Amino acid sequence: MAIDPIPFLTKYASFPSVSTDSAYSAGMKGARDYVKHALAGLGFEVEEVATPKHPIMLAERGPDRDDVPHIVIYGHYDVQPADPFELWKSPAFEPEVRDGRLYGRGTADNKGPQAVQLTALSRLLEKHPDLPLRITFLIEGEEEMGSPSFPGFLEKYADRLSKADMILVSDTGSPGTEQIVITTGLRGMVGMEVTLTGPAVDLHSGVNGGPVLNPIQALATLCASLHDGDGRVNVPGFYDAVGEPLQWEREELARLPGTEEQYRDLLGVPGFLSPGGATPFELVRFFPTLEFNGIGGGYQGEGSKTVIPSKAFVKITCRLVPDQEEDDIVAKVKAMLLERCPPEVSIEVKVDKGGSPYYVAPPGRPNTASDLSPVFARACAAAELAIEGAFGKKPLYLREGGSIPIIRDMKEKTGLDSLMIGLFTPRDNLHAPNESFELDMMEKGINAYEDILYRMAYPAD
Amino acid sequence: MAIDPIPFLTKYASFPSVSTDSAYSAGMKGARDYVKHALAGLGFEVEEVATPKHPIMLAERGPDRDDVPHIVIYGHYDVQPADPFELWKSPAFEPEVRDGRLYGRGTADNKGPQAVQLTALSRLLEKHPDLPLRITFLIEGEEEMGSPSFPGFLEKYADRLSKADMILVSDTGSPGTEQIVITTGLRGMVGMEVTLTGPAVDLHSGVNGGPVLNPIQALATLCASLHDGDGRVNVPGFYDAVGEPLQWEREELARLPGTEEQYRDLLGVPGFLSPGGATPFELVRFFPTLEFNGIGGGYQGEGSKTVIPSKAFVKITCRLVPDQEEDDIVAKVKAMLLERCPPEVSIEVKVDKGGSPYYVAPPGRPNTASDLSPVFARACAAAELAIEGAFGKKPLYLREGGSIPIIRDMKEKTGLDSLMIGLFTPRDNLHAPNESFELDMMEKGINAYEDILYRMAYPAD
Repeated sequence: MAIDPIPFLTKYASFPSVSTDSAYSAGMKGARDYVKHALAGLGFEVEEVATPKHPIMLAERGPDRDDVPHIVIYGHYDVQPADPFELWKSPAFEPEVRDGRLYGRGTADNKGPQAVQLTALSRLLEKHPDLPLRITFLIEGEEEMGSPSFPGFLEKYADRLSKADMILVSDTGSPGTEQIVITTGLRGMVGMEVTLTGPAVDLHSGVNGGPVLNPIQALATLCASLHDGDGRVNVPGFYDAVGEPLQWEREELARLPGTEEQYRDLLGVPGFLSPGGATPFELVRFFPTLEFNGIGGGYQGEGSKTVIPSKAFVKITCRLVPDQEEDDIVAKVKAMLLERCPPEVSIEVKVDKGGSPYYVAPPGRPNTASDLSPVFARACAAAELAIEGAFGKKPLYLREGGSIPIIRDMKEKTGLDSLMIGLFTPRDNLHAPNESFELDMMEKGINAYEDILYRMAYPAD
Repeated sequence: MAIDPIPFLTKYASFPSVSTDSAYSAGMKGARDYVKHALAGLGFEVEEVATPKHPIMLAERGPDRDDVPHIVIYGHYDVQPADPFELWKSPAFEPEVRDGRLYGRGTADNKGPQAVQLTALSRLLEKHPDLPLRITFLIEGEEEMGSPSFPGFLEKYADRLSKADMILVSDTGSPGTEQIVITTGLRGMVGMEVTLTGPAVDLHSGVNGGPVLNPIQALATLCASLHDGDGRVNVPGFYDAVGEPLQWEREELARLPGTEEQYRDLLGVPGFLSPGGATPFELVRFFPTLEFNGIGGGYQGEGSKTVIPSKAFVKITCRLVPDQEEDDIVAKVKAMLLERCPPEVSIEVKVDKGGSPYYVAPPGRPNTASDLSPVFARACAAAELAIEGAFGKKPLYLREGGSIPIIRDMKEKTGLDSLMIGLFTPRDNLHAPNESFELDMMEKGINAYEDILYRMAYPAD
């Protein structure tokens, strides 16, 4: 019997599967068991692969034959923390339908897309119980914590996975149901935490203020040195490997609905930076960043405490684009941090490995890899037709600003490329209070997915 | 019967009189009642003056006659918060003698000096019950929160206080028992809290990173702009009113024991700034600062959270020297903050009024005020002899880096100057864990204070 997607997702999203907080281990188990049960119901053989943290669900069904395409479908059952809870209109883990959306943590990222995929498959299997398609579901539980166990899992399972032809993923975004985007590139990411230490302990800023270089001041100066007045990253060699977007990419981007003003209003910023004259949409998709995700030091409470703090820190992440490589960028940024750190403070830089960028051009584009898998090419064609059929408009092929490091890892370890169909939108409030998934997106997504899988299974039709 | 200083201070410092935290109201009342009882025991008429927050103890004794000097002795019964408690070797509010020091929050700042003053007076009164000296003890309970009720108190009591001749204060520092300092100047202070706002909510740094000016980056650049490479404050007009120290002040400073290397080791800093070639000791005492006391924004927990924060803030205080005025400096710094804030973020500046600097030169120096009170001049002479007698060396007259805004307020409202005798030292860990008061300083301080008060009462002897 086909899955009923709204009740399915309502129940799936009711499990508080927050991977970063051990207090939610019951929620993790609940979500895992629930999706395992659903997969088993569709005839999958489900394996729960233990990892140092949260198990990975590995499920397979369908004929294991060379003439049958083998698709890996990747997703994750864990969700972002839901706090601050008080900002939710309905409880984060009691999903509720309002105004055509299902509200709840994880409804869009990433349980909703899984509901789409499983429902589509269940409908298709009802009509074609002997579907000539081998499918491996790979649903992990650590995506929201940076997939720390995934490389270890890949080491062990790379041989088995590399027998597949490609990966299907819906963990990226589209502007809305009026325009679906197939993501051709993900930015890479690397993190650094920089701590400056001045005096051994916090000092009285009156008694000792003047000769002591305040670590906050040193940190501000160091951070300020990392961009130029235009907003470009001011680290020698940072842009060395960055290629210009190709003409066809610019053309796809030009078809993207939405104006700069609408984007500005959506984010609520007074204005945008425009280094090198690039538009906001180009900057997000085609160029790297060096971003400060957090800064802290000294007294942060109400009122004042007149100290010269002993320490101050900043958390930095760089988003990388082709052909930047993680290690190279880390080395360059770190060298500048050390070189520019004044001698009156000491510096510690902790590197938090992320991943290099990922890129795959669809067939027929000037930058398509010569070894693009024929099944991937077929999937692109299927997706174009299916998406046009379900949503009324062809998809756009665009790079995206976010990072899913494991997509590149899977390419490196198994050779598989990922076809990424964006099912969530900027209105879904990912990683924020009142996350939701649009029901219209869900239904059209199910139709598209059913059609894609059908076309993959029966290419002759 | 004379006060026994060690048990007196042990008990006084056992009351957790943290003024900034309402959870300590019992500790505040305990300390207040304890000192009230002590004052009454010495024959003072004690008045507990209610304020919006913590009462001020106003106590008077001695003949109210024109030919009898009238001295106000100022102190405070409140203490700094004691956290982090785990860094204390013995509990913060269970004072304990170790290695010639009494350890406990408030033992040096400011309960120890009060123990010195009260013990000295009790000994003197035992010998001279009819001491021809009028003394007003003024012991407030909000010094560690910036004395917010003090201006209101002064409005009401200025007439009465202005009948006195001078103020005696021991809430400043000396290098140690080997060299006592009489403080001739205190820096003024003014605080500002600057908040920059970019996007309406925290954004995903992958999805939206590139065109958005990160508020942390904007704040770093803004903060970095406030000093030049030399460490001088880079705000036009900031130094306009700053006078060079006079020759006699430099000579006094040259007599101060301790080397730059020792100071560096004491603070545990890798090195010192030296704007304009000034020494660390000159910078602390003679020059103004613009200091960052706290900074915050974005994610500060463990690991990473890849956001572009909506907001970032910094807490600034400026320490001012003669003849800088608070309002002028606020206007200049604020103007630069607004001017230099980039248009891609919005800025809010909250001003936290502090106070202008205070200065009094002892008699006979080129910059002595022509209207210096004769009783103040006599007190200087008495202090010089008494301190030489008790500590074996004349005091130095030096300005100090800290701020006690009410000293300037009292000068403005009552005309009274303050003779500030430093009884705590850099080894006392003020405002930090393991605060202590040296017992040798206590005993010599008592002897000096007894002698000063005696000489003030019997100038002919």
